[in-house]
Amino acid sequence: MTFFNQCVNKTVDGVMSTEMKTESMSLQPLATSGGPKPQLLCIFGTGDLGRSLGLCLLQAGYSVVYGSRRPHSCGPLPQGAQVMSHVAAAQSTSVIFVCVHREHYQFLETMAPHLEGKVLVDLSNNLKKDMYPEANATYLQRLVPKAAVVKGLNTLSAWVLQNGVLAGKQVYLCGNTAEAKQAVADVATKLGLTVLDRGSLSAARELEDFPLQLFPQWRLPLRVAVCLTAFFFFYLLIRDVIYAYVEQGKDVSFRIMVALANKVFPIVSLIMLSLCYLPGVIAAFLQLYRGTKYKRFPDWLDRWMLCRKQMGLVALGFAFLHAIYTFIIPIRYAVRHKLISRVVDEMKNNKTTPFYFDNTEAWGTDSFFVLGILGFFLYVLLGLTSLPSVGGTLSWREFNFIQSKLGHLTLFICTAHGYIYGWNKFLRLSTYKWYTPPGYMLCLIVPSVVLVLKVLLLLPCVDRTLTRIRQGWERTQSKATNL
Amino acid sequence: MTFFNQCVNKTVDGVMSTEMKTESMSLQPLATSGGPKPQLLCIFGTGDLGRSLGLCLLQAGYSVVYGSRRPHSCGPLPQGAQVMSHVAAAQSTSVIFVCVHREHYQFLETMAPHLEGKVLVDLSNNLKKDMYPEANATYLQRLVPKAAVVKGLNTLSAWVLQNGVLAGKQVYLCGNTAEAKQAVADVATKLGLTVLDRGSLSAARELEDFPLQLFPQWRLPLRVAVCLTAFFFFYLLIRDVIYAYVEQGKDVSFRIMVALANKVFPIVSLIMLSLCYLPGVIAAFLQLYRGTKYKRFPDWLDRWMLCRKQMGLVALGFAFLHAIYTFIIPIRYAVRHKLISRVVDEMKNNKTTPFYFDNTEAWGTDSFFVLGILGFFLYVLLGLTSLPSVGGTLSWREFNFIQSKLGHLTLFICTAHGYIYGWNKFLRLSTYKWYTPPGYMLCLIVPSVVLVLKVLLLLPCVDRTLTRIRQGWERTQSKATNL
Amino acid sequence: MTFFNQCVNKTVDGVMSTEMKTESMSLQPLATSGGPKPQLLCIFGTGDLGRSLGLCLLQAGYSVVYGSRRPHSCGPLPQGAQVMSHVAAAQSTSVIFVCVHREHYQFLETMAPHLEGKVLVDLSNNLKKDMYPEANATYLQRLVPKAAVVKGLNTLSAWVLQNGVLAGKQVYLCGNTAEAKQAVADVATKLGLTVLDRGSLSAARELEDFPLQLFPQWRLPLRVAVCLTAFFFFYLLIRDVIYAYVEQGKDVSFRIMVALANKVFPIVSLIMLSLCYLPGVIAAFLQLYRGTKYKRFPDWLDRWMLCRKQMGLVALGFAFLHAIYTFIIPIRYAVRHKLISRVVDEMKNNKTTPFYFDNTEAWGTDSFFVLGILGFFLYVLLGLTSLPSVGGTLSWREFNFIQSKLGHLTLFICTAHGYIYGWNKFLRLSTYKWYTPPGYMLCLIVPSVVLVLKVLLLLPCVDRTLTRIRQGWERTQSKATNL
Repeated sequence: MTFFNQCVNKTVDGVMSTEMKTESMSLQPLATSGGPKPQLLCIFGTGDLGRSLGLCLLQAGYSVVYGSRRPHSCGPLPQGAQVMSHVAAAQSTSVIFVCVHREHYQFLETMAPHLEGKVLVDLSNNLKKDMYPEANATYLQRLVPKAAVVKGLNTLSAWVLQNGVLAGKQVYLCGNTAEAKQAVADVATKLGLTVLDRGSLSAARELEDFPLQLFPQWRLPLRVAVCLTAFFFFYLLIRDVIYAYVEQGKDVSFRIMVALANKVFPIVSLIMLSLCYLPGVIAAFLQLYRGTKYKRFPDWLDRWMLCRKQMGLVALGFAFLHAIYTFIIPIRYAVRHKLISRVVDEMKNNKTTPFYFDNTEAWGTDSFFVLGILGFFLYVLLGLTSLPSVGGTLSWREFNFIQSKLGHLTLFICTAHGYIYGWNKFLRLSTYKWYTPPGYMLCLIVPSVVLVLKVLLLLPCVDRTLTRIRQGWERTQSKATNL
Repeated sequence: MTFFNQCVNKTVDGVMSTEMKTESMSLQPLATSGGPKPQLLCIFGTGDLGRSLGLCLLQAGYSVVYGSRRPHSCGPLPQGAQVMSHVAAAQSTSVIFVCVHREHYQFLETMAPHLEGKVLVDLSNNLKKDMYPEANATYLQRLVPKAAVVKGLNTLSAWVLQNGVLAGKQVYLCGNTAEAKQAVADVATKLGLTVLDRGSLSAARELEDFPLQLFPQWRLPLRVAVCLTAFFFFYLLIRDVIYAYVEQGKDVSFRIMVALANKVFPIVSLIMLSLCYLPGVIAAFLQLYRGTKYKRFPDWLDRWMLCRKQMGLVALGFAFLHAIYTFIIPIRYAVRHKLISRVVDEMKNNKTTPFYFDNTEAWGTDSFFVLGILGFFLYVLLGLTSLPSVGGTLSWREFNFIQSKLGHLTLFICTAHGYIYGWNKFLRLSTYKWYTPPGYMLCLIVPSVVLVLKVLLLLPCVDRTLTRIRQGWERTQSKATNL
Repeated sequence: MTFFNQCVNKTVDGVMSTEMKTESMSLQPLATSGGPKPQLLCIFGTGDLGRSLGLCLLQAGYSVVYGSRRPHSCGPLPQGAQVMSHVAAAQSTSVIFVCVHREHYQFLETMAPHLEGKVLVDLSNNLKKDMYPEANATYLQRLVPKAAVVKGLNTLSAWVLQNGVLAGKQVYLCGNTAEAKQAVADVATKLGLTVLDRGSLSAARELEDFPLQLFPQWRLPLRVAVCLTAFFFFYLLIRDVIYAYVEQGKDVSFRIMVALANKVFPIVSLIMLSLCYLPGVIAAFLQLYRGTKYKRFPDWLDRWMLCRKQMGLVALGFAFLHAIYTFIIPIRYAVRHKLISRVVDEMKNNKTTPFYFDNTEAWGTDSFFVLGILGFFLYVLLGLTSLPSVGGTLSWREFNFIQSKLGHLTLFICTAHGYIYGWNKFLRLSTYKWYTPPGYMLCLIVPSVVLVLKVLLLLPCVDRTLTRIRQGWERTQSKATNL
């Protein structure tokens, strides 16, 4: 196969020149094998993508030739690259990066004879999903059936390509010809990329959808957050604002902006945090019940467990908002007004109540604040360790310590923060306006359940069984063996 | 060429031993090719750099021999490394890392005959730019003309070398001999580094300047920030402090520390944020006007666009300061004093005004705070995604969504925060002390312009044309085709 | 050696197929060399580890066959992998990843004949240190003496393996057979990992202890922090709470929660920050005294210098807590109560003192806050640049600028913050309750010493000598030369 020889020879020239030479030295004179001349790669298209890619290739030690409709007026190109017509450029090399929009692929069909046996790398992306009936790479292969089309590198983000920081990134490849894929993989490796092979060209559609993903793992957590926020907003709107208007005839609608929001945010944050740790607890009980870890979890549990990190980060976002909303409380007009009216009121009625300093109240509110602060501190710590560059440097035990031990401690402290907020209001009748419990009571349910279940799991007898199950022991099997 | 054989053989021994062996097995007995014995590399100099590098090389599977002036008293070296005299060490290997200060290069001239055909890697850096008339590597090449000098690896930061976390870093190489560069590149690759070839030894000066760079991309944003801060500081000093002193005879100089600063910071932050998005808008209008995307932008626009990230981060820094300055408002002496005096005043004059609760005022100030908080929250989110490890994991569409959509939303919210601050003061004459507009009015100009232009760009007809231009369509060309 | 041939051939098939082919093309027909067929790797064990690893290997382009006790009921495996009995799987390949708990290694002894000459990769970790008298890998080698056991890859964290983000990570290998290590290193390299060779199998214990490390570099800083916190807590408890109770009969125990903690946190933070910069100063004076940089520092100094980063981050944590504790001051019950009582008191006694606005007091407290805010801002900046992904992108000079210049500036600002807090209380007798100095005075000692010493080092004459010493000049040596 002509194609294969060409392609592989070219690849080897550049990327693996030294190994080859030591071998070949005894076999053939140096000059014949091309010497240390860098491998020549071709790029079709002189747009932004073509230019960025060309620059990266040049810096990695390749020679680059551009194929252009108008070789003499194609704008600024990276220094050191040549420009030719498409046909001339294609003839000079065997690996061609197609940096052209799909809409302009047509011209490739007309020059198909010149592309026979070449490796065509399709880097194209679409503007939205399902724009075209077939994947761009499949379409390209159909236009030029005798070339070896490889789909790949299209997942490199704009940020990465423009800044040339390719080192250590993962990219995907797919294609029907293994040699063509290997040739492209070699180039990618030389660029510092790590290549994952996703199989034949039928995976091209999947690869083309990657750059169009819009936070797929964030959807479930964000939806949960929006639903919870909406529910608690209206619930508290009724209890706090509408109740005051209907029963007492007071217009406290201004409370919606800050006071109400500052009740909704901590509630949603705490529930989201407990939803982070609930699936782990459910999974443990499922394993205990089944007596094995080898059975798959139900789909909903799997999906839930996969978005725990995102759930935690959304919870952190709400906690952050709660913190800032709390800090600005004393500079609000309503709060200042209340403080001044209270003093004036005090003086006029000559009451002595405020002069009595309630030590229990001081302890209570201060404990409430301290638990909130410590909880927030741990929250931020958890968030920091979920940064890729921090989390990646942790050992297994450190990761486990932070995400499990510290995580449950955070949940415990934040739940305690909520309980102290309730304090002595739980048994007071006036708390239950229109027979509804206040928001913080509702929000304490899930965290409390998670914490109780977690404590059950930490009981020595349960913990021992669970550890054995997680090490591969199976209850049913051991019975069978006993028979 | 003796040099080439030696160098490449050595390189291949270690790095590529297995591939070689499978080939060579049929050609020659294993023993001859050196077997799996690790490649020997030489390091001249037993200072910090030499020691750190030696440790990294040893851990990557190489053998290391040090060349030292005093082989028997050169301090602690990494375990497993040998020490010899310079000459002895040089003879035993073909790749020599010169970890010696340029001032001591002289001795290399005396031992030039022993270095013939060796690869000398110059890792040296200078303490400041233009310390010497020629680059260190050029000087080294002049001292030892028959060696192949390669400049490189000098950009590895102290932090990276001391901690051995080389994996995934990018390094630069340059040199006149391709084989020598390849030999060094192989070692660097084995260390986990990604190598970028910068051409011949004439690029050495450029490489030596890299580690001396002091935030080159931060300079423009920092200069803009300093100028804006200085301007608004003096502007507000005149309006707030000097005006009060001259016209009312009051000394409010204490306001400089917090109150004045807390006006300057948000002003500078908002202007810097809008300067982040202004070049993008200008570029879009330029493309619309020119009808093509293939013409280069003017230099100033290019430079501006390249420092948008840094501009945004500086803006975030000012916003962070603004937030903290705001949080501590209520614990300031002046604020508490004002509050107390106001109550006492109230009581004495027996006024009833403060008891009237102004609902509009409550809504207004709360909206003001809420917009500020949300803006700050989005600001922090933008800052987090500009962390290399976070930004690198985003898909193209996610990157675009955050930096464009979320960015403009942040700008919009922060601008609204500024407008609400003005509220009903825009039309009041007393606002214009000495006929000057207040600071927040000045700072709203640029963001408002950016937002209006952005809205224009989002009009369906404009957006459609722009999208076509960005996909490569050209107005002039299409006209030409029509003829 | 049969083992070696098998192993290396297999490795080369997959990883380095193209190079081989270009060579072999002239030597033998393509078909014989196995063509582009991906290399087959075997995984023993179908647990979580086995499954995650298998998925990673498949994506990197390998074929995977699992060896299982029950090939027909071993749960969900990655798509594309085969499952066989252990013996059948072992025979089909030469590199076997043992993803089985050490407790189940026994079965490997029974199938030892089938494992002769195979590369066995031991990825196992233990649940705690010193669980077994010998390392898992040593035990495995003893069970199957004729296989080449390689210990490695066990340091990959759960997070990394489950998410498949191996690119750019460092892993360690050790083993007695260099070829076996090379074969495993090739697989690891293809996965995007960077391999560090840690020598013979005797290092296996060390490698097995890595994932069990629980923040080893954080221990010293955390211990120092805990000791300082405890000391200052009890010291201030006596001075603030017990003193008030004994001497004035007042119960101010509620102050423990917030007011006391908010004194302890900044004290510990400032001392920890100065302890970050003290070792650098000590080291400089030691070098000046010794007149050389080639003598090793004492062990305690070395250990101290290695945990400076962690010390700084702990200090940042305390500063963060101090900041939030400060923000919530005005919403505390005790603070509001005090404010109200003060106003009421004022009115009743008809005093006029509060109406006098003390300009010096306003300047003093505002400067105090501003220094605190700027110090905190720089603190956070230092913390951000210590993130691996940020610190790694800095040039040597930038790193030096931030960690040394900016760091000492932060220390200076925070120390000034402390001095202004003292203000005019230093000379007042009432400050020294029970003849003890207040906490902030104690905490200013170390930072002041560090700053004074640093200023001494910056004196031109001292700085010049130090720079020469750090460039390799030695005082004793130069004297010797003079003789």
